[in-house]
Amino acid sequence: MQRPSPVSGRPPPPAARRTVSGLLPSWVDGANDPEGAFPLNNLPYGVFSSAGSAPRCGVAVGHHILDVALLEAQGLINLGQPVFTAPSWNALMALGPAQWRALRTRLTDLLCEGGETALWDDQALRAQALVPQEGASLHLPLTVTEFTDFYASRQHATNVGTMFRGAENALPPNWLHMPIGYNGRASSVVVSGTPIRRPWGQIMPPEAMRPRWAPSERFDMELELGAIIGVPSAGPLSVATAQDTLFGYVLLNDWSARDIQAWEYQPLGPFQAKATATTISPWIVTSAALAPFQCAAPAREVSLLPHLADRGPMHLDLNLTASLTPQGGSPSVITRTNARELYYSFAQQVAHHASSGCPMRVGDLIGSGTISGEAPGSRGSLLELSWGSKDPFALEGGEKRSFLLDGDTITLNGHAQGDGYRLGFGACAGQVSAAKLDPFSAE
Amino acid sequence: MQRPSPVSGRPPPPAARRTVSGLLPSWVDGANDPEGAFPLNNLPYGVFSSAGSAPRCGVAVGHHILDVALLEAQGLINLGQPVFTAPSWNALMALGPAQWRALRTRLTDLLCEGGETALWDDQALRAQALVPQEGASLHLPLTVTEFTDFYASRQHATNVGTMFRGAENALPPNWLHMPIGYNGRASSVVVSGTPIRRPWGQIMPPEAMRPRWAPSERFDMELELGAIIGVPSAGPLSVATAQDTLFGYVLLNDWSARDIQAWEYQPLGPFQAKATATTISPWIVTSAALAPFQCAAPAREVSLLPHLADRGPMHLDLNLTASLTPQGGSPSVITRTNARELYYSFAQQVAHHASSGCPMRVGDLIGSGTISGEAPGSRGSLLELSWGSKDPFALEGGEKRSFLLDGDTITLNGHAQGDGYRLGFGACAGQVSAAKLDPFSAE
Repeated sequence: MQRPSPVSGRPPPPAARRTVSGLLPSWVDGANDPEGAFPLNNLPYGVFSSAGSAPRCGVAVGHHILDVALLEAQGLINLGQPVFTAPSWNALMALGPAQWRALRTRLTDLLCEGGETALWDDQALRAQALVPQEGASLHLPLTVTEFTDFYASRQHATNVGTMFRGAENALPPNWLHMPIGYNGRASSVVVSGTPIRRPWGQIMPPEAMRPRWAPSERFDMELELGAIIGVPSAGPLSVATAQDTLFGYVLLNDWSARDIQAWEYQPLGPFQAKATATTISPWIVTSAALAPFQCAAPAREVSLLPHLADRGPMHLDLNLTASLTPQGGSPSVITRTNARELYYSFAQQVAHHASSGCPMRVGDLIGSGTISGEAPGSRGSLLELSWGSKDPFALEGGEKRSFLLDGDTITLNGHAQGDGYRLGFGACAGQVSAAKLDPFSAE
Repeated sequence: MQRPSPVSGRPPPPAARRTVSGLLPSWVDGANDPEGAFPLNNLPYGVFSSAGSAPRCGVAVGHHILDVALLEAQGLINLGQPVFTAPSWNALMALGPAQWRALRTRLTDLLCEGGETALWDDQALRAQALVPQEGASLHLPLTVTEFTDFYASRQHATNVGTMFRGAENALPPNWLHMPIGYNGRASSVVVSGTPIRRPWGQIMPPEAMRPRWAPSERFDMELELGAIIGVPSAGPLSVATAQDTLFGYVLLNDWSARDIQAWEYQPLGPFQAKATATTISPWIVTSAALAPFQCAAPAREVSLLPHLADRGPMHLDLNLTASLTPQGGSPSVITRTNARELYYSFAQQVAHHASSGCPMRVGDLIGSGTISGEAPGSRGSLLELSWGSKDPFALEGGEKRSFLLDGDTITLNGHAQGDGYRLGFGACAGQVSAAKLDPFSAE
């Protein structure tokens, strides 16, 4: 396939657009690589900065980031008002789905083989607007308004329930009737690459009479998918309408201190155990890009109430992995799973979320909860992989792990596999650093 | 006491300022009324609009609202940058405690008997800047960044625990060691006066095999106090430092659907049961105003871990009431309690909240949880007042209640009682309207 450099040469002659079942060829370097994350079919949204420049909106394509703030300033993209200079995609989201589609169409036209030549023709602009990903800094791609975390993987809920309550009572009685969720902490959401400080907290040791204040010794990751609300609402939503409010998706690691959680979570749910940090991928893969990868819900053992019932294929076929890299070591893939393992779709999660009349807003982040499959190698948390530390698992170098050690890096990756192309999110990574010295030792 | 109209006459001759233990006299109409809510000692912050004008910042004093946006525009208040034109106090909060103090000093000076005469002397400005409360509309006084709700009243936790788990296991094992809390939903916070629509939800009837989708039949109120974070942080906070981050307080009614809650809350805590609405008072009473009303913590049966231990008087002596007014009826006071009933101060709640490294931000709203005393007449929720509907309570007209009926209005009031004056919050009220027809009946 002809892949001219983004800054020189001429584009190939116009070619018929392929259907979404195949690669949409682009003239941008790296965009047509069948193993690459960012073909023209993807066009994920992030916030980036390069040396000396302010963070602004960009779109990943091939090995580059398209500086859409610059294209907007130059008049090549015009949505009626400036939306890309701010370091967040919330302004675009607020314009609504018609403008989301208009932008995607325009980007596709500017970047595809045989499309609009305005960007191609202006060699100086092209050189400036296509920023190499290597060397660019990536920032949080949105302003997270509120963060909600669900518990929507049946195998995860079953595993955790079995460990805590025994196999007979693994799933709570409500679980098969509604997507259980809890409100998380938006202020703790960070972008991939942000160091994760091991938290202190109240921990009740087994057999102890009193809790102690100590760094978490059971610090964990959770492999999740996140969805972003792009259309506000203020009342119950049907599943079909809820689906239409979803702007896009990110990979999400909900760092969890299991020892803090075990002591605090009754009766009002997880709180400080989940408030240290939640890492998301730098790129938002849009609902439009993932539309071809929608798939059917799993079989329903118990039928859902009508307002939560399945309304067409709204689950996602996304391959997901987590790897653990010890300080100075090499990565081991510790889990391979798929977003299909979710029992409830994001549309069902959001429909339940809004059912009480809860207002949903642009920028709300919805986590799926840990995604685990049935096979031991497809469990999405260390709690499950080590079965509560009863059965530590081995890394490729032979080292064992139950929970995270200082210096460990967890990296989530995910992709949708198309016919000759892939859509990726970029890595969602974070390295655990040692707990602070006792922050109150001087008191 | 001489109380000239705010728009005519001359101020009395300069008089020595009284200490904070007594009334600070003001020339504003109604400010020196010993039963009034808004003497000069108070100066609470709200957002208001009058006929045809945009919502902007105002300060309640006597029977009036001081239009601080106008005084800022006229140069009588100058904090270095404009902060009062936006419909929220977040901009002032973000300037930090030195500017909070500067504003309070300036307002006191402009409004007290014998102080700065710049406002008094300009009769036209005075007439425009002192807007009668009657006829003004009040809006949400801040942009709520995130909302967290605690469970910090021992008697409330004991009552609820006794109903659900029996008297022997009333308090969860962690309760005496940390302020238990959960993240709520900021998008659902509304100002006093906003109608409250009875929610639909999943409800599991007793003895049923399956849940049903229905309007809540056990819709409740919760009498709470709220605190507002004014200083951001990103790491563990000592109790003393946490105290210094508190900008002010509001009355707070956390509407709760008990039937939805009972079915959903295991294992991850309350979610849709608490997401319909949370009503707050229109006025933020500042930490500075309430400083003279700080009091000591209750006796500690179990000593707190050092990082949560009491550090001086950080509880508040605030009289609190809730009244219920049936549609077309007259109000019955259904509970009289006091914020002293809280076991954990807000400083302790915030210190626990930040303990994992959870970032706290300007505009975060912290609810205390329902405040109940030991006497039956001092219980802060209908769940407790009717003991889970086993013992319906009587209103003054003889009508009985277990939970809220359509048309019922709940009004919270609160005041700190000084020597010859009171500080109030304004009423925190909401009327329950009938549930919508089934929002999904057409599906």
